[in-house]
Amino acid sequence: MTFITEADVDEIALGAAVLGTGGGGDPHVGSLIAKRLIRLHGPVRMLSVGELTDDDFVVPVGGIGAPSVSVERIMAESELLAALEAIERGTGRKPTAVMPIEVGGGNSMIPIAAAAIAGIPVVDGDAMGRAFPEAQMVTYHLAGYGPGTTVLVDHHGNEVISRPVNGEWSERLARAVTVEMGGGATMIDYAYDGSVARECAIPDTLTLAKRIGRILGGRDAEGRELRDDERIDALCADLGAVRLFDGKVRDLQRAVDGGFTRGAAELDGVGADRGSAFRLDFQNEMLLARRDGALAAVTPDLIAVLDLATGMPITTDAVRYGARVAVIAIPCHDKWRTARGLETAGPAHFGYDVEWTPVEELAARRKREAA
Amino acid sequence: MTFITEADVDEIALGAAVLGTGGGGDPHVGSLIAKRLIRLHGPVRMLSVGELTDDDFVVPVGGIGAPSVSVERIMAESELLAALEAIERGTGRKPTAVMPIEVGGGNSMIPIAAAAIAGIPVVDGDAMGRAFPEAQMVTYHLAGYGPGTTVLVDHHGNEVISRPVNGEWSERLARAVTVEMGGGATMIDYAYDGSVARECAIPDTLTLAKRIGRILGGRDAEGRELRDDERIDALCADLGAVRLFDGKVRDLQRAVDGGFTRGAAELDGVGADRGSAFRLDFQNEMLLARRDGALAAVTPDLIAVLDLATGMPITTDAVRYGARVAVIAIPCHDKWRTARGLETAGPAHFGYDVEWTPVEELAARRKREAA
Repeated sequence: MTFITEADVDEIALGAAVLGTGGGGDPHVGSLIAKRLIRLHGPVRMLSVGELTDDDFVVPVGGIGAPSVSVERIMAESELLAALEAIERGTGRKPTAVMPIEVGGGNSMIPIAAAAIAGIPVVDGDAMGRAFPEAQMVTYHLAGYGPGTTVLVDHHGNEVISRPVNGEWSERLARAVTVEMGGGATMIDYAYDGSVARECAIPDTLTLAKRIGRILGGRDAEGRELRDDERIDALCADLGAVRLFDGKVRDLQRAVDGGFTRGAAELDGVGADRGSAFRLDFQNEMLLARRDGALAAVTPDLIAVLDLATGMPITTDAVRYGARVAVIAIPCHDKWRTARGLETAGPAHFGYDVEWTPVEELAARRKREAA
Repeated sequence: MTFITEADVDEIALGAAVLGTGGGGDPHVGSLIAKRLIRLHGPVRMLSVGELTDDDFVVPVGGIGAPSVSVERIMAESELLAALEAIERGTGRKPTAVMPIEVGGGNSMIPIAAAAIAGIPVVDGDAMGRAFPEAQMVTYHLAGYGPGTTVLVDHHGNEVISRPVNGEWSERLARAVTVEMGGGATMIDYAYDGSVARECAIPDTLTLAKRIGRILGGRDAEGRELRDDERIDALCADLGAVRLFDGKVRDLQRAVDGGFTRGAAELDGVGADRGSAFRLDFQNEMLLARRDGALAAVTPDLIAVLDLATGMPITTDAVRYGARVAVIAIPCHDKWRTARGLETAGPAHFGYDVEWTPVEELAARRKREAA
């Protein structure tokens, strides 16, 4: 049996920030709550996706709302139990396990905290393998499952249980209620049997986050210590990721608009990339990367911005003029590379007029052209 | 046992329009639905409030949203059953009776339609004795009861069940969801045991609406035919109402603002009132009446505007320049004349800086001054 300890939480939080690709909210506040609850209630048992049985009732729990609100209005621990009670009341079934709806960002932490306080296991998997801004951008949706019974609770004690007709309606209703609740709430959706979770969840993503956190924390998979300047390359090697660009932020447009942080950053190359230019477009998450005008990576592949010196992930909210960064891209899970996956979260959905191409193919093309 | 037939529905609808005091939505569309369902399923049994037992589960059902939407987007009959199923799912209790949340306006009709399709009785009573614009303006709130489990369903098939912490939160969350649902939805709130309904409901208000409709339709309580010009006085005599003013609309300010129809009408006196001026202020409902600058009637007393020639009620949306009208005032139920009642729905709540005075006292004062 695998357990998540306080020390694991810090590593998972760091890895989750990378998988958040600039969005998904800062896991820091959530990690403090998760650690406090593990201290009080003991380590959290982690179940692999394959261990789930048909009798399990797997409940994804997370925060919804503007990340800026979640940092300032810290989730009450009572919300976690209230959410689990509400889904039980709404479905007549007792949750047997919680799961992150998205492993990227702060929503990696909330299920760990909920599992600790409720005394049930957390599933080592999630429904995105990264972070995405809209409620229907989940692997359950790709497999044809609706949001099912959906719960929203707030720190006032309000509880809303809805049965939206589809994922788009879930997003609309949840967003309206969340705004009214003050901009942030705790949400459960896509709560299904273990059999559906086995079919849909992307497995081993908490373990993946932990591995990323461990490497950026300075130790490789074998426990060997890493120098600061080795970490990013070690991470790319471990993940099969591509180091797209090293550069310095030359220009930055960013606006908060309808609960989204939208904008673009322009980078001038440094080191081996000196003389090249790079552009990152973001909508909460980093979504599109272009090198000297040519596509370098695009959603649903993961684009992460790391501090060039320390390897620490930088969110779209925190990118600063003059910052020296490395941009890496991680191939997304194959579920997102299907027609339905690309329709749901590919470049066209976000309004980018580029043809989706896997990041490893783009990298190979650039290598050929450079040769 | 008392039953509501198709013919009764027309009389109740007419009376409900008077008790709507200009707001509450036009009962016409609802009356067509109620009559159709009675034709299909048979007359609806009506229970008096006193007949309710502790085992009853009394479910107020009605429409929420802008009246203009409810007229254009006619409620689907499926919404009624969906709402009743949702409250059963949300509470684990099967509704044994439905009730109007407000007898004024279109919400008098929806419970009759719901009772017909569900095959359960409707309660001869409601939670306002009139129409009011906000969800917490109900006698249950005055008695200290919260909204309890609250249901919203729409014609898309979406279902939202919430447990707001109090009436104000119920109003906020319901309004946000309703806007998202397209501006109109079917709602259940304040669903309680028969014992609570016996304590809180204003009794006999469907019967009252029917009596009003009967008189304005041209027959007095004894079945004697009334001439057109006798009807308004017969109505006032029957209700203990005051005929405040006969006049012609000289000026009209009206704007639709945040789902409310707000404005004022200025009247010049005709007949016995020639030479006097009258002003009506409204926010969906008629709320404040002044004669030559002096208070004539104010919320929570009921102020209704009737066509001078026919006695037909005129809504705040339908008041026209040049219209010849009679303004009458009906004393509200004593529950509204308590400190909590006046705090909830008195002039100060609506922003009017006048001291609340019962309409019959204002009428007596005017009589003394005229003598």
